[in-house]
Amino acid sequence: MTVELVSIGTELLLGQIVDTNAAWLSARLAEIGVNLYRRTTVGDNLERIVGALREALGRADGVITIGGLGPTGDDLTREAIATVMGEPLVLDEGEAARIRAFFEARGRTVTERQLRQAMRPVSAQPMPNPYGTAPGLYAEWNGKLIFALPGPPNEFQPMVTEHVLPRLAACTGGGVIRSRVLRLCGIGESDAEAQLSDLIASDNPTLAPLAKLGEVHFRITARANSPEEAAQLIATMEQAVRERLGAYIYGTDDTTLEQAVVHKLMEVGQSLAVAESCTGGLLGHRVTNVPGSSEVFVGGIVSYSNALKEALLGVPAEVLARYGAVSEPTARAMAEGVRQRLGSHWGIGITGIAGPGGGTAEKPVGLVYIGISDPTATVVRHQLFPGDRETVKYRATQYALWLLYKGVTCGGCVYLSQP
Amino acid sequence: MTVELVSIGTELLLGQIVDTNAAWLSARLAEIGVNLYRRTTVGDNLERIVGALREALGRADGVITIGGLGPTGDDLTREAIATVMGEPLVLDEGEAARIRAFFEARGRTVTERQLRQAMRPVSAQPMPNPYGTAPGLYAEWNGKLIFALPGPPNEFQPMVTEHVLPRLAACTGGGVIRSRVLRLCGIGESDAEAQLSDLIASDNPTLAPLAKLGEVHFRITARANSPEEAAQLIATMEQAVRERLGAYIYGTDDTTLEQAVVHKLMEVGQSLAVAESCTGGLLGHRVTNVPGSSEVFVGGIVSYSNALKEALLGVPAEVLARYGAVSEPTARAMAEGVRQRLGSHWGIGITGIAGPGGGTAEKPVGLVYIGISDPTATVVRHQLFPGDRETVKYRATQYALWLLYKGVTCGGCVYLSQP
Repeated sequence: MTVELVSIGTELLLGQIVDTNAAWLSARLAEIGVNLYRRTTVGDNLERIVGALREALGRADGVITIGGLGPTGDDLTREAIATVMGEPLVLDEGEAARIRAFFEARGRTVTERQLRQAMRPVSAQPMPNPYGTAPGLYAEWNGKLIFALPGPPNEFQPMVTEHVLPRLAACTGGGVIRSRVLRLCGIGESDAEAQLSDLIASDNPTLAPLAKLGEVHFRITARANSPEEAAQLIATMEQAVRERLGAYIYGTDDTTLEQAVVHKLMEVGQSLAVAESCTGGLLGHRVTNVPGSSEVFVGGIVSYSNALKEALLGVPAEVLARYGAVSEPTARAMAEGVRQRLGSHWGIGITGIAGPGGGTAEKPVGLVYIGISDPTATVVRHQLFPGDRETVKYRATQYALWLLYKGVTCGGCVYLSQP
Repeated sequence: MTVELVSIGTELLLGQIVDTNAAWLSARLAEIGVNLYRRTTVGDNLERIVGALREALGRADGVITIGGLGPTGDDLTREAIATVMGEPLVLDEGEAARIRAFFEARGRTVTERQLRQAMRPVSAQPMPNPYGTAPGLYAEWNGKLIFALPGPPNEFQPMVTEHVLPRLAACTGGGVIRSRVLRLCGIGESDAEAQLSDLIASDNPTLAPLAKLGEVHFRITARANSPEEAAQLIATMEQAVRERLGAYIYGTDDTTLEQAVVHKLMEVGQSLAVAESCTGGLLGHRVTNVPGSSEVFVGGIVSYSNALKEALLGVPAEVLARYGAVSEPTARAMAEGVRQRLGSHWGIGITGIAGPGGGTAEKPVGLVYIGISDPTATVVRHQLFPGDRETVKYRATQYALWLLYKGVTCGGCVYLSQP
C-alpha cells in the first residue's frame, strides 16, 4: 500500500516553521510497512491544494493531508477535499454540537467561523479531536483513502496514532498498531544493534534502533487484530530485548534519564548533591528539570575555579597541585566533599576539559573524570567524549546520571566497581 | 519569479531526518521576494526524481534540488538532472582535480565513486563547495534555472548564500543579497514590531521580526548591485532600528546573550558568581557554554534547599522564615551572599517557582525574583513568567543575563535602578 503526504500551510513555504509533523508521520508509516514515495508542501491556496491532492491520488492508494483545518479563511483543506471528491460540504451535527459545547463551557458564544470546522464532504466522516476544536476527516473515494489531520502536533499525533495508523494497518493486514520505546544508556548503537540483529530483522513486531546523544532507543511496533494481541507481541519482544540488554535499559517511551534517576531516588528515599566543574551547572539543571526533584536534590556547587574547589568542596590544595584539577583524585575529592558538606546520601563530582581550548597531549579536550560517592564507597570513572563544548558537557552529565542510576538500582556505590 | 524545491533522500521519507534545509531555504527565498508555491520530497529513485523535476519545471521558473549529490549509488540527482535536460554527463576536470587533491592531501587514493561527484550535464556548471567533496550544479535549460545543492547543512547553507541567492536576485533585480540579524532582549515582539512598523513595510532592505523564547530577532536583508551597496543599505536600516530600539540590542547574527554577557565581562575585566534556586544550574550552564568563560565565571551555588541558602550563601534564617524562599529579600541576600563568599565582582541570585507544583494564590507558578549585585548596589526585579517548568527556568536565566548585560554596559548595578 502506498500513500502520499500533503502538508498545507503558507507558513511552511515561508520557512517560518519546520515540518516536523511530516517527518514524524513518515516514520510511523515506515514502521507499519506503508510505502511513502512522495511528500508535497503547498500553501493556503485552494487551486494549488486541489492540484496537489489530485496528483497524489493519481499516483498513490491514499493521501494524508496535514494542516489547514482551522477556523480562519486561510484554512482551505476541507473545501479542497470536497472539490476533489466532487461533493458538497455539509455540517456534521455531532461535531457542531461538540464545538458549541466547547465554547459554552468557556462562557463564550460559538461563531460561524468556528462552526466551519464541523463541515465535511457529504460522504466523509469526522475523526474526533479530543485536544482541539478542529476534527479530522476520513473518506473513501474511488477506491482511495483520504485523511485530513490538524496541524498542531499535540492534536496531530494522537489522531495519527488512534485513527490513521489503525485504518491503514487494517488495509495492509492487522487492525491495530501499538508501539513502545525502550531507552538504553551505557551501550553504543552499533554494539546494541549487533546484539539484537536477529530481532531487528523481525517483521511483526518490528524493532527499530534510533541513536540519540548519549543513549540509544529501540522502538517496538506491533500490528495485530486487537489491542491485547498487540500488547502481547510487544511484551514478548520487550522481554527478548531485556534478556540480552536489560542492564542498559533505564526507561520506556518518554521517560528521560534524569526522570528515571530522580524517581529511583524518590523510591529509595536517598538524596543527591552535585559538584560540577566543566559541566558548569548542566547536571543540576537536568536533575531539576524533573518536577518534584526538590524532594531528593539538595543542591550543587559549580566550582569553576580551583580556589572554589578548595574552599567550598574541601579538595586538598596538594591534590590540585600534584594531579591537577582534571584528575581522578580531584573528581573523587569533589564527589566526597559535596556529599559531606551538603549532607546528601549521594555525591557526584565532575571535572574535565570541555574545550575548545585547554586541552594538552596528556589531557585532551573531551577528557572528563566523574566521581560518584555514597556511604558505601566512592568510584571514579573517566571517558574521552567526542564533540564540541556543549556536546562534551551533555555527554558528561549523561554518563554521570547513568552511573548514578546504576548505583541506586544496584544498591550502592560499592557495587559499581564490581564487574 | 517562482521556484520550487525538490528535497531528495529516502531517509527523509522514512522520517529519519527532519528537512530543516527546506525550511531554511524557504525563509531565504521569501526574504528576496522569490515565490515558492510548492516543495516536493522524493526518495533515492531515478524515475521518481525525474518525474518530480519535470513537474516542477513545468510549473515554475526554476527548481532547486537538495541532496543526492554524494558519491554512493543512492545519489542520483546528477543523473536525474541530466535525464531531464536530455544531456550526457561529463567529467568536470576542474572539480575532478579538486577532489583528487582533497584525497591526496589526506594520504588517500581517490576512488571512481568519489570522482562521480565531479560529473555534470554537459551544459551545466559546477558550484564550488569549500566544505565538502560534492560540488553543486547550476544550469540554464529551456529558459528555466536548475540548481542542485548538497544535503549536509554546513555545505548547503554557504552554497545557498554565496551562489544561489545572488543568481536568483540577479534574475529578479539586484545582484547580491546580504543579511544581518539584530538580537533584542527586554522587549516583547509586538512592542518592538509596533515601534518599527514603518521600517517593516520597507521593500529593500526588508526587516523581518522573528520571536524567540525570551528574545526577539530582526533580520535585515538587502538586495543590491554590489556587496558595498548591500552593506550600505543594511547599515542604514540597522542605524534606524538602533535609533529607536538600540537599548534592547545585545548582539548581531549568531551572538547569543550569554556570549554577549561573557564578552562584555572580559572586556571590562569583571567576574561573576551565581546563586541559583529554581533554575537549578541552568544559568551557570549557559554562561559556561561560552568558550573562555572560565576567565570571568568564578562558579555558582545551586541552593535548592533552604538549609543550603543559609549555610552556603548566608541568607539569614529570619529572612527565610519571615518572607519565604521566594521573595525580594531572599533574592537580594542570595546575590550579595554569592558575590561576597565567592569573591566575584558581580553576583546573581535567582529564586522562584518553576512549577508545575508549589504555586499558591499569593506566589503563583512562574513567579521569579532575580537579585543582581555589584560593589555599587544590589537590585532585585521580579517577573511572572508564562510556560512550563523548563520554559520558566529558561526565561528566568534569560532575564538574569539581560539584567547583567545592562548592568555591565551601563557601568554598574547602581544604574540599573534608575529609569
